Amino acid sequence: MNREVNIEVKKKIELSKRPYKGTRDLFPSDKRIQEYLFQKMRETALLFGYEPYDGPLLEEVELYKAKSGEELINEQIYSFTDRGDRLVAIRPEMTPTLARMVSQIYKEAARPLRWYAIPNLMRYEKPQKGRLREHWQFNCDIFGAPSSVGELEILSVSVHLLKNFGATENDFEILINDRHIVDDVFKKKFKLSSEQIYRLYKIIDRAKKVPSDTLDAMMTELMLEPDSKKGLYDYLEIKNFTDLFTFLDILNLSTTKEYFQNFTNKISAFNLDKYITYDPTIVRGLDYYTGVVFEIYDKHPDNRRALCGGGAYANLLEIFNEEPLPGVGFGLGDVTLKDFLSSHNLLPDFTKPDNDLYLTFQSEEGEQSAWNLATTLRQHGVKVTLALAPIKFNKAIPLATRCGARYVGFLAETEISENAVTLKNLKNSEQLKISITNISNILDFITSKDID
Amino acid sequence: MNREVNIEVKKKIELSKRPYKGTRDLFPSDKRIQEYLFQKMRETALLFGYEPYDGPLLEEVELYKAKSGEELINEQIYSFTDRGDRLVAIRPEMTPTLARMVSQIYKEAARPLRWYAIPNLMRYEKPQKGRLREHWQFNCDIFGAPSSVGELEILSVSVHLLKNFGATENDFEILINDRHIVDDVFKKKFKLSSEQIYRLYKIIDRAKKVPSDTLDAMMTELMLEPDSKKGLYDYLEIKNFTDLFTFLDILNLSTTKEYFQNFTNKISAFNLDKYITYDPTIVRGLDYYTGVVFEIYDKHPDNRRALCGGGAYANLLEIFNEEPLPGVGFGLGDVTLKDFLSSHNLLPDFTKPDNDLYLTFQSEEGEQSAWNLATTLRQHGVKVTLALAPIKFNKAIPLATRCGARYVGFLAETEISENAVTLKNLKNSEQLKISITNISNILDFITSKDID
Repeated sequence: MNREVNIEVKKKIELSKRPYKGTRDLFPSDKRIQEYLFQKMRETALLFGYEPYDGPLLEEVELYKAKSGEELINEQIYSFTDRGDRLVAIRPEMTPTLARMVSQIYKEAARPLRWYAIPNLMRYEKPQKGRLREHWQFNCDIFGAPSSVGELEILSVSVHLLKNFGATENDFEILINDRHIVDDVFKKKFKLSSEQIYRLYKIIDRAKKVPSDTLDAMMTELMLEPDSKKGLYDYLEIKNFTDLFTFLDILNLSTTKEYFQNFTNKISAFNLDKYITYDPTIVRGLDYYTGVVFEIYDKHPDNRRALCGGGAYANLLEIFNEEPLPGVGFGLGDVTLKDFLSSHNLLPDFTKPDNDLYLTFQSEEGEQSAWNLATTLRQHGVKVTLALAPIKFNKAIPLATRCGARYVGFLAETEISENAVTLKNLKNSEQLKISITNISNILDFITSKDID
Repeated sequence: MNREVNIEVKKKIELSKRPYKGTRDLFPSDKRIQEYLFQKMRETALLFGYEPYDGPLLEEVELYKAKSGEELINEQIYSFTDRGDRLVAIRPEMTPTLARMVSQIYKEAARPLRWYAIPNLMRYEKPQKGRLREHWQFNCDIFGAPSSVGELEILSVSVHLLKNFGATENDFEILINDRHIVDDVFKKKFKLSSEQIYRLYKIIDRAKKVPSDTLDAMMTELMLEPDSKKGLYDYLEIKNFTDLFTFLDILNLSTTKEYFQNFTNKISAFNLDKYITYDPTIVRGLDYYTGVVFEIYDKHPDNRRALCGGGAYANLLEIFNEEPLPGVGFGLGDVTLKDFLSSHNLLPDFTKPDNDLYLTFQSEEGEQSAWNLATTLRQHGVKVTLALAPIKFNKAIPLATRCGARYVGFLAETEISENAVTLKNLKNSEQLKISITNISNILDFITSKDID
């Protein structure tokens, strides 16, 4: 063997059948699940009057620099220089694109603006359960809604979606907070500097995830006055809205308290209270939220993770030198949603496709009739999988079952001579020979409800 | 002003609101059109028993090198090195991913394998009408089908799709050829070298697009013997299958002729003949096809372009050292499809969303009833856009119309006191006050067919 052949062989062996790290090959049974998730997302969004939009896969990196946290740009973004010397990135999230698009049209558009999208996104992450490098994310956003009710509608959308999959308040909970509370308590009351506030957000963000001595160490590093240190520990002890109101009372933050009392009253009036719990550690520190922030958590002990995050932001259009337009939105990924539904056995079986008829012919003579019948039935909306070569009777049924068909059709010698087709219901074995010119009889038989 | 402030100002001004070159911002009216296209694609694929799949946005460049033409890799691919030093590319087409996925499962899978996908793809192209850098492409492929009938089914799928949009044989035509013809005539009969055949494909590909003297110059450069040169000119003169058969007769290519006679007989038997024309210049020179190749052309004089290309390939799994598995497939882009449908006025109006009810309240007292009614109606599948602040009667109707609602609902003082809602049909102005506890009456009124 000469060297060139060696290289050729090596190359062939090296070509991997695996998908790129952290991404998925969605085989039909996986893709049917994803289509089911997407369909429910679209349905839910449309039920609330949200309109679909989409944007480019690539954006200039400047857009993310202007909008997103440092970590995202420096460590998690897929960026490169294109052939025209532009520094671009595969979208890691949809909100910057949304802001760019809204900035073009918000002046003329009717308000509130309600938009949704289901884009594929990429982040350079260490792949682990619930976190892949590529995922799809359901994004819903409302712009220009009056204070509080925009937040409540967005929360309603997320609740409706999960209920639409069959989930209840036993399966998930919405942990909620508001950036105004942290700001009012620590910036206004305890006079922390901007630098301290920035680091404080990071600490709060991690408070539940680290052991108490690590938390203590982080707090010490922040060099808080004794008063504010006690304030922070008290803050982290808040368990619900009642606790929050007491905490705000002690600190004499009556305006803030009033605002949240009004907000929680509406949560109850709109029947959302059974889903929503106050949690002081939800701050979504690295994001651009300015008001309400929330995360939806799976209650299942084996899958204690957030499947959705969102909140309110006031200054999304600022980077385009446009006037403030308040917005509220959330993002919910397909991977975490699927994990959530699996933990609660809420995923239907998508192993097999959903076909109406597996149509076979038993000799070459039947081919033309089979094709023409298949064409006609499809024009009437019947899903027909056509056997493309003659198939024996005994092989037809297993093949039909394998492709998920509810009926199998035969065009054997007798049928051809009588210009008919024999149809067999695979569930109850009912069988009928029908003239192939009598399409309405065929449709009646095939679309009749099965009696299990 | 100091220097830093200057830079800050400059940065803000530079941040563009435009999408990245050659890509689209799909605002709701655009995205609704795209969703309509995708819906018909999915419907059509499922009617023929094709199963959905999807793959990663990124693949290692090696995969495309092994599979695709030189031009694609060198000039048209978005490739870059990831943080793990892998050379990767944003998928420019779906077939290599499809091959990689099929290579993992084809041994166990029932045949034929019928798969479809609607991925977003990127190519570094000079943007022009019908050609953008990012587009979505409907891909349908069948693997392991008997010779000829796989091709015919794929052709049927494409015809059914376009008919499903309301197009007829007056709007589009399928130009078809087979690589075997070129190979039989020029490789076997006229003994052209592999190098000559490679260049010949490029010439044939461009034959209709260049002036005749350019064609002559290209032919001269190929240094053909007088016989083969005449053969090539004769070949390019073929207008239909009858001409083709005469041409093959003259060259004594009886086996090839017989194969195509059988194929065209089936085209007629399956009623596809009115869509299909033989065209010697369709060879899809830079692709990996090995048999039948075809392109679907718009017949509209203002939009004479291909909206779809496809063909048969024998060796797709070869790059993975797997046994040959014959496949046939096509790709149809969303941009060219939309242009096609526009030229023939086949696109419905998607300017406005499709909403059932725009629900308003006239004072704060109505808010809670409005939210609860909206929630209940949505649980019954009614698309409700809720006005989030009190709205005067005279402003409600224009707002309802703007959001595409068929009905507008009022919860004013009278309604609140009577625990009722007033619903108005925006088409025929019919109006009814219904108790909000009587959901079935509300549903009946809202879902009744409008009489225009």
